[in-house]
Amino acid sequence: MGVVLSLDEKKKHEGSIQPLIDLTKADMGRVNELILSKAGSDVEMIPEVANHLISSGGKRLRPMLTLASARMCGYEGDGHVKLATSVEFMHTATLLHDDVVDESDLRRGKSTARMIWGNQASVLVGDFLLGQAFKMMVDVGSLDALDVLATSASIIAEGEVMQLAAAKNMETTEDEYLAVIKAKTAALFSAAAEVGPIIAAAPRADRVALRSYGLNLGLAFQLVDDALDYGGSAQNLGKNVGDDFREGKITMPLLLSYRRGTAQERAFWKKAIEDGANDDASLEKAIGLMTRYGSIADTIQRARHFGEIARDALAPLAATPEKDALVDVIDFCISRVN
Amino acid sequence: MGVVLSLDEKKKHEGSIQPLIDLTKADMGRVNELILSKAGSDVEMIPEVANHLISSGGKRLRPMLTLASARMCGYEGDGHVKLATSVEFMHTATLLHDDVVDESDLRRGKSTARMIWGNQASVLVGDFLLGQAFKMMVDVGSLDALDVLATSASIIAEGEVMQLAAAKNMETTEDEYLAVIKAKTAALFSAAAEVGPIIAAAPRADRVALRSYGLNLGLAFQLVDDALDYGGSAQNLGKNVGDDFREGKITMPLLLSYRRGTAQERAFWKKAIEDGANDDASLEKAIGLMTRYGSIADTIQRARHFGEIARDALAPLAATPEKDALVDVIDFCISRVN
Repeated sequence: MGVVLSLDEKKKHEGSIQPLIDLTKADMGRVNELILSKAGSDVEMIPEVANHLISSGGKRLRPMLTLASARMCGYEGDGHVKLATSVEFMHTATLLHDDVVDESDLRRGKSTARMIWGNQASVLVGDFLLGQAFKMMVDVGSLDALDVLATSASIIAEGEVMQLAAAKNMETTEDEYLAVIKAKTAALFSAAAEVGPIIAAAPRADRVALRSYGLNLGLAFQLVDDALDYGGSAQNLGKNVGDDFREGKITMPLLLSYRRGTAQERAFWKKAIEDGANDDASLEKAIGLMTRYGSIADTIQRARHFGEIARDALAPLAATPEKDALVDVIDFCISRVN
Repeated sequence: MGVVLSLDEKKKHEGSIQPLIDLTKADMGRVNELILSKAGSDVEMIPEVANHLISSGGKRLRPMLTLASARMCGYEGDGHVKLATSVEFMHTATLLHDDVVDESDLRRGKSTARMIWGNQASVLVGDFLLGQAFKMMVDVGSLDALDVLATSASIIAEGEVMQLAAAKNMETTEDEYLAVIKAKTAALFSAAAEVGPIIAAAPRADRVALRSYGLNLGLAFQLVDDALDYGGSAQNLGKNVGDDFREGKITMPLLLSYRRGTAQERAFWKKAIEDGANDDASLEKAIGLMTRYGSIADTIQRARHFGEIARDALAPLAATPEKDALVDVIDFCISRVN
């Protein structure tokens, strides 16, 4: 018993996704069924491509946010299951298109769909899943929820284009970078958390609180992801260490290191990112510089900052098990990095 | 005056899009303004890419169908302008993604967006326009119209995947091919025509009639497009003659020629399409075989068949100038080929 207790203590300290998983377990069972059924099509290639990614073991954090936020606002219908599935489909569609845009080979430790079925199938199956997502939202019949999710779809694409336009530009400022991740990652977290109170017809204050929670959790989540890319192992991460570096992606640790470096170091970063001098020796040097300037640690510090905002956003809401679980997820997202 | 009259006579006989253009002129002015404003973004690359395609002079037939079908059912609000713009954005998004999937260099006589800004921008700006389309539909607030358009988005993507899966497969049957073009082209024509009566709260019979009109017009339109690819000039067509052939696309004229050919000719088709032996000499031989077997003429005959169904679908509707204009468009679509 002593051991079990100490493990529990550790989890408590580091935050945990387990309470959220436990609370949404029954509903997530229905989401997972709906995912399989709505990714189905007589056109065989569609479920093949879709299920390759769907079955690759993402945490499904976003649909859990929708389920928990609806329940904590007293929702008793079943529209939240469809909206949660829509949110996951929007995410899956984004991943399929992202892999094409980034020319990625590996996602969650598996070959990307585009490596197996080609870019074409990835683009088109992404479009199909987006269409299915909108159909499910329409089924639920809440124009407010539709508005929030359709708006987030535009914002996500806008963020991706912003990132593409800023690609390999080492002069990107921290503010510009935050605008990118707010759009490409945080907007969907925010929408996922906001549609819960919407279909529950909760007071406006709850809606605003959960929207802010989602947005700031999303920012923290993405920043930790950025840090992990330089500090995790392929196993934990499901992608290779240094993928962002090799793709010439500007992320927070890189941006901080560049700004804090000497003129000589800045020349190194430019050569690595803008001219593609990004072999293993360069990656090792990059991680060395990041360590010297504390860029990875400070990226996590930035994540903590947004995590605190997410926590305070939830504070005014009535105490519920769901609220506790959502708070716990903040620490979980941040402590992934350790 | 005599000359003018004889031109009018000729137009009448061949069908004309002019009455539809005249009837929807004021509303199309508002659609064109909305297109420009909703393709706008602080992210400069978005309007650049979007306007490149938007300004390349498509006929905007689909949004005109929405405007005319709403007006002929007595609609007096302004939601039809937003829905028409949504329809055009869905079409534009599809074209952006199609050019990536087909690796096309030329569209409507101009370089494709992917040739100028890359595949990545084309995928992402397509996603952005799709998001904007859904936002406008949500603004209109008709769940029925949303359902029809969201469903068509899924079906279009499904049709594209179907085409991809059947790519370069010379054994594709005519039925299979019709299923592809019904999904990838006719579904949006059908949805464009159906949302008019929906927002006009017209009787179900009108809705069914206009849906069927749109579907069959779309089939005719695509078949004529297939024929034009082997019979038009790059100027009329805005693409190169034989593009479908060089891309190894199975279309109606090719499918008919293959089925009607000798064993030796079938070997030629397989080599051309499946193995990519599609140089200019092969294209010339292909067009020769199509002429011998009447495959282009019979493709147009098939188009006429669906045109007749479209005409009869409209028959029960009350006589209005819009109805006459929609009938005239059928002949216009088919006579493009002459």
